[in-house]
Amino acid sequence: MNQQLTEEKVFKDPVHKYIYVQDQTIWDLINTKEFQRLRRIRQLGTSYLTFHGAEHSRFSHSLGVYEITRKIISQFERNHYPDWPQEERLLALCAALLHDVGHGPFSHSLEQVFDTHHEQWTCAILLEDTEVNRVLRQVSDDFPEKVASVIGKTYPNPIVVSLISSQMDADRMDYLLRDAYFTGVHYGNFDLERILRVLRPFQGKMVVKESGMHAIEHYLMSRYQMYWQIYFHPVTRSSEIILRQITRRAKELYESGYTFAWMPGPINKLLDGTITVKDYLKLDEAYMQTIFAQWAEEGDSLLAELCDRFLNRRLYKYITLSDPGDSLLEEAAQQFISIGLNPDYHMEIDFPFDQPYDIYRPDAKKGGKEDKAPILLLNDDNSLSEISVKSDIVRSISGLHQGQYHIYYPIEPLLASAHQLSAEVRELFKI
Amino acid sequence: MNQQLTEEKVFKDPVHKYIYVQDQTIWDLINTKEFQRLRRIRQLGTSYLTFHGAEHSRFSHSLGVYEITRKIISQFERNHYPDWPQEERLLALCAALLHDVGHGPFSHSLEQVFDTHHEQWTCAILLEDTEVNRVLRQVSDDFPEKVASVIGKTYPNPIVVSLISSQMDADRMDYLLRDAYFTGVHYGNFDLERILRVLRPFQGKMVVKESGMHAIEHYLMSRYQMYWQIYFHPVTRSSEIILRQITRRAKELYESGYTFAWMPGPINKLLDGTITVKDYLKLDEAYMQTIFAQWAEEGDSLLAELCDRFLNRRLYKYITLSDPGDSLLEEAAQQFISIGLNPDYHMEIDFPFDQPYDIYRPDAKKGGKEDKAPILLLNDDNSLSEISVKSDIVRSISGLHQGQYHIYYPIEPLLASAHQLSAEVRELFKI
Amino acid sequence: MNQQLTEEKVFKDPVHKYIYVQDQTIWDLINTKEFQRLRRIRQLGTSYLTFHGAEHSRFSHSLGVYEITRKIISQFERNHYPDWPQEERLLALCAALLHDVGHGPFSHSLEQVFDTHHEQWTCAILLEDTEVNRVLRQVSDDFPEKVASVIGKTYPNPIVVSLISSQMDADRMDYLLRDAYFTGVHYGNFDLERILRVLRPFQGKMVVKESGMHAIEHYLMSRYQMYWQIYFHPVTRSSEIILRQITRRAKELYESGYTFAWMPGPINKLLDGTITVKDYLKLDEAYMQTIFAQWAEEGDSLLAELCDRFLNRRLYKYITLSDPGDSLLEEAAQQFISIGLNPDYHMEIDFPFDQPYDIYRPDAKKGGKEDKAPILLLNDDNSLSEISVKSDIVRSISGLHQGQYHIYYPIEPLLASAHQLSAEVRELFKI
Amino acid sequence: MNQQLTEEKVFKDPVHKYIYVQDQTIWDLINTKEFQRLRRIRQLGTSYLTFHGAEHSRFSHSLGVYEITRKIISQFERNHYPDWPQEERLLALCAALLHDVGHGPFSHSLEQVFDTHHEQWTCAILLEDTEVNRVLRQVSDDFPEKVASVIGKTYPNPIVVSLISSQMDADRMDYLLRDAYFTGVHYGNFDLERILRVLRPFQGKMVVKESGMHAIEHYLMSRYQMYWQIYFHPVTRSSEIILRQITRRAKELYESGYTFAWMPGPINKLLDGTITVKDYLKLDEAYMQTIFAQWAEEGDSLLAELCDRFLNRRLYKYITLSDPGDSLLEEAAQQFISIGLNPDYHMEIDFPFDQPYDIYRPDAKKGGKEDKAPILLLNDDNSLSEISVKSDIVRSISGLHQGQYHIYYPIEPLLASAHQLSAEVRELFKI
Repeated sequence: MNQQLTEEKVFKDPVHKYIYVQDQTIWDLINTKEFQRLRRIRQLGTSYLTFHGAEHSRFSHSLGVYEITRKIISQFERNHYPDWPQEERLLALCAALLHDVGHGPFSHSLEQVFDTHHEQWTCAILLEDTEVNRVLRQVSDDFPEKVASVIGKTYPNPIVVSLISSQMDADRMDYLLRDAYFTGVHYGNFDLERILRVLRPFQGKMVVKESGMHAIEHYLMSRYQMYWQIYFHPVTRSSEIILRQITRRAKELYESGYTFAWMPGPINKLLDGTITVKDYLKLDEAYMQTIFAQWAEEGDSLLAELCDRFLNRRLYKYITLSDPGDSLLEEAAQQFISIGLNPDYHMEIDFPFDQPYDIYRPDAKKGGKEDKAPILLLNDDNSLSEISVKSDIVRSISGLHQGQYHIYYPIEPLLASAHQLSAEVRELFKI
Repeated sequence: MNQQLTEEKVFKDPVHKYIYVQDQTIWDLINTKEFQRLRRIRQLGTSYLTFHGAEHSRFSHSLGVYEITRKIISQFERNHYPDWPQEERLLALCAALLHDVGHGPFSHSLEQVFDTHHEQWTCAILLEDTEVNRVLRQVSDDFPEKVASVIGKTYPNPIVVSLISSQMDADRMDYLLRDAYFTGVHYGNFDLERILRVLRPFQGKMVVKESGMHAIEHYLMSRYQMYWQIYFHPVTRSSEIILRQITRRAKELYESGYTFAWMPGPINKLLDGTITVKDYLKLDEAYMQTIFAQWAEEGDSLLAELCDRFLNRRLYKYITLSDPGDSLLEEAAQQFISIGLNPDYHMEIDFPFDQPYDIYRPDAKKGGKEDKAPILLLNDDNSLSEISVKSDIVRSISGLHQGQYHIYYPIEPLLASAHQLSAEVRELFKI
Repeated sequence: MNQQLTEEKVFKDPVHKYIYVQDQTIWDLINTKEFQRLRRIRQLGTSYLTFHGAEHSRFSHSLGVYEITRKIISQFERNHYPDWPQEERLLALCAALLHDVGHGPFSHSLEQVFDTHHEQWTCAILLEDTEVNRVLRQVSDDFPEKVASVIGKTYPNPIVVSLISSQMDADRMDYLLRDAYFTGVHYGNFDLERILRVLRPFQGKMVVKESGMHAIEHYLMSRYQMYWQIYFHPVTRSSEIILRQITRRAKELYESGYTFAWMPGPINKLLDGTITVKDYLKLDEAYMQTIFAQWAEEGDSLLAELCDRFLNRRLYKYITLSDPGDSLLEEAAQQFISIGLNPDYHMEIDFPFDQPYDIYRPDAKKGGKEDKAPILLLNDDNSLSEISVKSDIVRSISGLHQGQYHIYYPIEPLLASAHQLSAEVRELFKI
Repeated sequence: MNQQLTEEKVFKDPVHKYIYVQDQTIWDLINTKEFQRLRRIRQLGTSYLTFHGAEHSRFSHSLGVYEITRKIISQFERNHYPDWPQEERLLALCAALLHDVGHGPFSHSLEQVFDTHHEQWTCAILLEDTEVNRVLRQVSDDFPEKVASVIGKTYPNPIVVSLISSQMDADRMDYLLRDAYFTGVHYGNFDLERILRVLRPFQGKMVVKESGMHAIEHYLMSRYQMYWQIYFHPVTRSSEIILRQITRRAKELYESGYTFAWMPGPINKLLDGTITVKDYLKLDEAYMQTIFAQWAEEGDSLLAELCDRFLNRRLYKYITLSDPGDSLLEEAAQQFISIGLNPDYHMEIDFPFDQPYDIYRPDAKKGGKEDKAPILLLNDDNSLSEISVKSDIVRSISGLHQGQYHIYYPIEPLLASAHQLSAEVRELFKI
């Protein structure tokens, strides 16, 4: 059972000015320890090493997604749109607030190595024995499952799902505004109030009034800019690569029976694959950084070096290539070995598209990673058009952008052994 | 020896838009591991528990102080003010950048308990065997000492000291703007460009053109507002109190010979007072939070409870009092004991003035904590006036403000044992 | 009879982002020609000659006052405050929108000379045969009188009056934010959303929750800063003085029977005191500027000179004095005459306090110009305190500020005849 | 001869914070009456009838273009770029400041009717007997011609021309930022500081570092958005159409020998084509509005009606069409006549592309309207690429956008005579 709070509570928020809490359930969820833990997980992973302002947490982002969802619903209710199912309000708000609750430290970098998925952990936190689960069950016995199904996109009412998860969902709107604010770039700013005004619930879908097309173009361009300027920034990529290498190396060592000088608590269970929700919740970025600081003094020099690089921001340099030719890379790898480097670690090839972002792909197939609902315009005659049919701009950014690829490598040992490298390899790595 | 960089380097900064680096020495200092460590220390300590945006680090603040100092000096040079000693430029910039490099985790809360002082650590980091020291010595052998003396306020040229440390120094200007930006409040905004334009070097002092008086009033009022709305916020005070209690308890246990289940590295040395610079640099907020997470599972229930409160934001409540009467407090303390609480920990009385902030005290005595140079107006006839002589506003905020005091306490055990408390005590604690 | 619009209409507004119109009556009022005329009257009179951005009109300010009032009422309704009389909503909104509808061109400067009062014209526009009157009468026959009585502060329900006219009314809140935005200064910014949240209707009064005291202090300080930096700016005063002299001279000439080369329409009636509402509505700043352009070619050289000064921004210079001594001024006046100047026009003494602004005067007497309701804090025990009793800051800005006075004068003729002036007079006028 | 001012002067500007004047010549130009007259000409013509904040003048825009030019040059000088001709600094600044000095009231709407061109008037004001000319001649005898040739794009040094007039000139950069600020929309914001940092003088051209491509895309998208959201806004078009009709009608009447009740000064000369610079300078928007107010009472009912519509914002409605079919329009025209309307005036067909804006057309031919220098990227290998070759985004907005066309018409008479219209015509005009 949910109750209205007798007095609205507010959080001061730099992006939305204030975040308004009106429901006891929302208030209680915010105060659970699983939600408070999001304060110890950064929203943008290692981006703070490129943009020093980007130190904001998933806690503030989660509040922001909740607030945008609240504003959308409040607008639907104020205008008495008949296609909005009023009884879904609390469900949508809870799903908005909790959609990221399963994120672990540096998720995007570490999930690959540990083969873990934050979506599954979110589900587990909602459904297993946690404070979050207890608060949700006070609404009704099946409420935790309902919230989980909205986040998992299987809830039967698609309009509720699309608030949290679509090409124009509250999640994206908040992170663009928030990441722009904290990094200090202009690119992610768009007119949130205008977009809220042109959104409509319509026949079980979320659509946009046709007159709002230019506002949507502006929002998509903001996204396009943020991806290229912030999320795909090569210096951030460099730090993510090092982070991934640290965990890859630790796993190799662990699996080969190496004895770590210090290896407390949950990291062990993460490495051997026996981790439970209770352990998982102890993983946060403070903990990971502390482990890295310890590992910087480990006996394995590769692990120690990588941790030192991460902590003291001694990142790999990179070169940009359209087509390097396999034989040159092969030659370089050989020479790396000859001067004591490990090409598996010290020469990492990267495409920006390996990343968990999509700009806007209207034709993504259901079941794939990009199965987000497309943006639909509501025409004057009540027909619908997918936005890229009408907008040249959107069409131009919808295709797969052909980016260049990068090779990341440590510059210091190459400089130290430059005389042992061939002229071609020196030229390739700008030495 | 310092060199101009062949190409200016920039950092994107949300407060100053860009931070410009023009000197090799500055660039090298930023890349030392001692300076990078400031990324792991928050600028506002525990304030993020009250204002969730306040997750910014001392790293970004230090860059900001550097940038404001650079702008002031650039303006002095552009206008060819004869009273500005041009040869001091690099010294002033280095002191600005490094003035906070000795800060430890949650400094304001923990220094009291451990009887350690960040100013001394700053000095040690500049003068002992560190990367920072190596970079500074490349300028000249006595350069580390000179930078340390500017930060320590003993450098013979007072105008250089006052850039970093006075009632209107670059430190304060940056933190007001930055803390306002990241918390999201308006109060700390003032017109930095206008203030820079009215600053003048004059006879070895930093003064302000008389026509700039209202701009200075505005700046001082911003400070006044920030203190009351942000820095003295009672919820932040509550989290600081818990933090201090954690370390107080840990120290008590340590000194009584208690065996901690887990007690790695530098915290030991901090507790037994044998800590060196090398150890000190390993202390950061990630490390402290990880220790608190471990201690939350310690055998000592008081320590475990306090750590749990801090991590999961289960803070003490507070009541506001002008004069509670000693006997009532005595009675409350007795009843606390009778229900199993420890008044030494569970009933903490707090005055905001115990804090390391001063709003503006023109008459502070040399040698005391507040020995910052006052703000001087340069009159048309080239005489100087201390600003509170001319401004009613400044006079009204310069006195010691009579605040109220607060008692902080855990609400849960009081609620659980309410029937064992007297009516007066229940009324006092609003139960 | 008022109706809800079937679809909310919006105006894009730089200060409030959007202005929302929900009532047919409000929409119709905005479209009357009397209201549209406010587009041709600047909000800040001649301030644009000092701050070139200050070209905004009373039209945009009037919409802003309406919007703030709408937000306050909406918050009262959302929170179901029992002390807010819901049936007064439309009345309050209309009064907010129309409170300035009687303003003429450059009101503050010209009303003195023509002995006319914009409050009376507002009343006439509401009650006589105008489009505004017709729209209001559609609500009910006595509705125009009710709106006029709210604006005239005689409406029996003081809470409605205080929304539009008190020390913290919607009028002041909008003009501080708006004037700050368009001039580009920071000083007028305060946290509107926070202030709206601490306002309460209480026993027929508008009061402020005690915890909002610092927010109110901040608002009052913004006002204080705006007065000194913008509204009392000596260059603006200089242009107002010239404007007043133009009309003073025109009136003198008119009354002495002088024949103007060109003297169309309503200005005649203004000069001979027979002006009607219909004529008055033809007076706008475009019209006045066109007349000044014509008068710049009149035969009377004083009138022509003054008009030329105004149009081409050749303003009087000023000197600042605390006490000039009457005899020196007397001597200066004589010398002005001897070089062909007219001291009545060319030597104007000015005190800032002659202006229609008050910063904050809690003790202003009923009946005087300042009879605005004071700001009341609602204490925890439901008692009320006037804010200056609790706040040192407010006390320090509430008194009559002792400003300096200025003498305004044309510099060019003094420079041209410098040799005919005594040394004292030359020194006084900095020649 | 130009002199440095002994003390920098500043103007407070909402867009650039401050505008810095360092040269006596610039200061003197700002104080000429021809430049001060720009205060009486709005930057965005009739847009204030759609966006009420858009009341800013060409005076503030001209200062802004000057300031951006000053910043670009200052950056070039600070970096000692060898391709920047330092001796051209004052010339570029004067051209930037004066490039719009010949604009008349509502230029874009009225020039067509009167067959006058603001570029020619700018030239005349620079070269004939004006205060501006006198100030410029103090630099050197041929300086007025040089400034005129930069503005006229015939100056032999193309890099100076391109500062003021190219696809990325200071003019456009200022108006996008300024119009966004005063209308209150977000769309025109781009990162000016970043763009300034990537601009380079290179072999007589102004180019952009390749790494700045995304910043340029963002700037072009801002422009695209501003055109569709602000400059082409159909309500603004409606007011421009009425304005043009007023002057068209007045000209018809004048040429047919009609006697106006009131017809002072320069408008006569504009109508009969004998206008001189001296007369032209008397035309400003205050004057035009005053004339319209008089004409609203003229005997010719069409002229009177149009003036009333303009002053009281009773604009034509519009319908949007892709292809109406000529026969239906013909039928509508007949029916308009039958109910007493004049299709020449009351049924105006409009394409947005008739307007004096271009978004970005890289291939425009020299000599045509769009002969602005394209945007060139400076590649790593020092080759140049036109930006649309590299950027999909820019390519997608570079083509001629197929807009829809609109028919503008007065709704009131159609409603009054609806029964006399055919069903098709009623449907067409939504009656």
